[in-house]
Amino acid sequence: MSEMIGFIGLGNMGHAMAGSLLKAGYALTVYNRTSSKAEALTATGAQLASQPSEAVTTGGIVVSMVANDQALEEIVMSPGFLERLGPNGIHLSMSTVSPATSRKLAELHAEHGSTYVAAPVFGRPEAAASQQLWICVAGPHAAKERVQPVLNALGQGIFDFGEEPGAANIVKLCGNFLSLSAMEAMAEALTLAEKSGLDRSAVIEMLTHTMFSAPVYQNYGKMIAEKRHTPVGFRQILGLKDVNLVREVAEHASMPMPLASLLHDRMLAGIAKGRGDMDWSALSLDVLENAGLKLPPSSKE
Amino acid sequence: MSEMIGFIGLGNMGHAMAGSLLKAGYALTVYNRTSSKAEALTATGAQLASQPSEAVTTGGIVVSMVANDQALEEIVMSPGFLERLGPNGIHLSMSTVSPATSRKLAELHAEHGSTYVAAPVFGRPEAAASQQLWICVAGPHAAKERVQPVLNALGQGIFDFGEEPGAANIVKLCGNFLSLSAMEAMAEALTLAEKSGLDRSAVIEMLTHTMFSAPVYQNYGKMIAEKRHTPVGFRQILGLKDVNLVREVAEHASMPMPLASLLHDRMLAGIAKGRGDMDWSALSLDVLENAGLKLPPSSKE
Repeated sequence: MSEMIGFIGLGNMGHAMAGSLLKAGYALTVYNRTSSKAEALTATGAQLASQPSEAVTTGGIVVSMVANDQALEEIVMSPGFLERLGPNGIHLSMSTVSPATSRKLAELHAEHGSTYVAAPVFGRPEAAASQQLWICVAGPHAAKERVQPVLNALGQGIFDFGEEPGAANIVKLCGNFLSLSAMEAMAEALTLAEKSGLDRSAVIEMLTHTMFSAPVYQNYGKMIAEKRHTPVGFRQILGLKDVNLVREVAEHASMPMPLASLLHDRMLAGIAKGRGDMDWSALSLDVLENAGLKLPPSSKE
Repeated sequence: MSEMIGFIGLGNMGHAMAGSLLKAGYALTVYNRTSSKAEALTATGAQLASQPSEAVTTGGIVVSMVANDQALEEIVMSPGFLERLGPNGIHLSMSTVSPATSRKLAELHAEHGSTYVAAPVFGRPEAAASQQLWICVAGPHAAKERVQPVLNALGQGIFDFGEEPGAANIVKLCGNFLSLSAMEAMAEALTLAEKSGLDRSAVIEMLTHTMFSAPVYQNYGKMIAEKRHTPVGFRQILGLKDVNLVREVAEHASMPMPLASLLHDRMLAGIAKGRGDMDWSALSLDVLENAGLKLPPSSKE
């Protein structure tokens, strides 16, 4: 596993994923807009690139993990990126972006002889650091075969959704939509329980040890019950971005999604009140407020 | 375990629960408005009562499992029921009813020297038949101790929510609200996937083997993905009843619940279209219809 891989985007998730690749024995060249975030990685052997194209090896594999569609497009369009990746190169695009962006970028790569593979991931930074991500992958068959060892070094399970890269992004958006829906449901249910004189934690413990014994309910249920929205695994502003991507796909597909609309308005209110940088489970604070309950001191800016 | 227990209400759930009590060695006197439903039970040793009070032994335990608040009140108010249960009798009320009804009936029982224990259950009829229910219990301590063996014969887990009987009903309503919310979320997500060209079953399989590996998602997710809403475990009309109970508690507690309102309108539309007797997961058909998709032939009346 001495192949040199490029890794672009060292946010909470990207940093942990790059660390997992180093641990798995890959040689890495990393790039991040704020280069100081690369320090822990360069200290353990990663090379630092000063621009995206420097992380690219002709005919090699470059991985990207950035915050949104615009950041991803900026990388692909940055000077020399597509030219340097060139024939037989693979861009393994792991960010949560819209299927339309994936399709557009897939065409651009094809025009330069390289291949775009969409491989968005499920899991918080802790899962990324311990090779426990779940990965949805879609793109041309041969390229998927070649990146398989890289994906194996990052995830505990890889699910193939065919050759059309946008398909993987849609599955990822469906999953984030289910997660946010579960958070809204728990926030409403536990606040109803509290206003009826019950203990929030006792209620969620019962439910998450029985019918709802899944990680999403157990992890976020505990945070929502305790009104504790740290540590920040995924910021509410990014949750809103994902709901907006869901709504964009839905609009394009003529698919009414009233629950997505509700989640959009819920998070937009939270962001309006200055909670955009809190964990996305903090959408629960808006439910508390609307029920006339006091917010916990830790949630104040 | 030769104690004679009364059992009132032999719908899908009640019938399976009465069967579990017989299997556990209890002597049962059963009552149902339509007495033919008792045949399989009387064939295996249960006595048949011709009115609710005949199922009651003075100072004994009577279990009820009926469709709604009104049916439960009719039983309690039926001639001789409270008088016969009398001092030291326990009414183990396992139906999904409002906390207000539980509180009112608890007072009525107390006036007659008997005790009302609320013990609503989670699980479909198959779980009831195999002693695999999850049970929330609330009521006076001594009575809860005495009914413990009966609950153990029905459930795999019993969760105590204190002395105030309405508390157990609120937890049950919270659980059903979470289940319906998960169904709405899955219905919207899978229909979005279908309209985007993906295979519904492939998407739900990935999600329910990873982040959403809980029974509610696995069971209902498969039904919603396959647009197959049989066998009927719980009718949509009863789902609407439960959402109405949630909204009643919410109204009383001044607790805005936009997701509960969405679920209410969703199921009311399904019922308006003649789908009230289908499984509650059939709320998904309304999502399909609103997205301009054809309903599967099996869903037509």
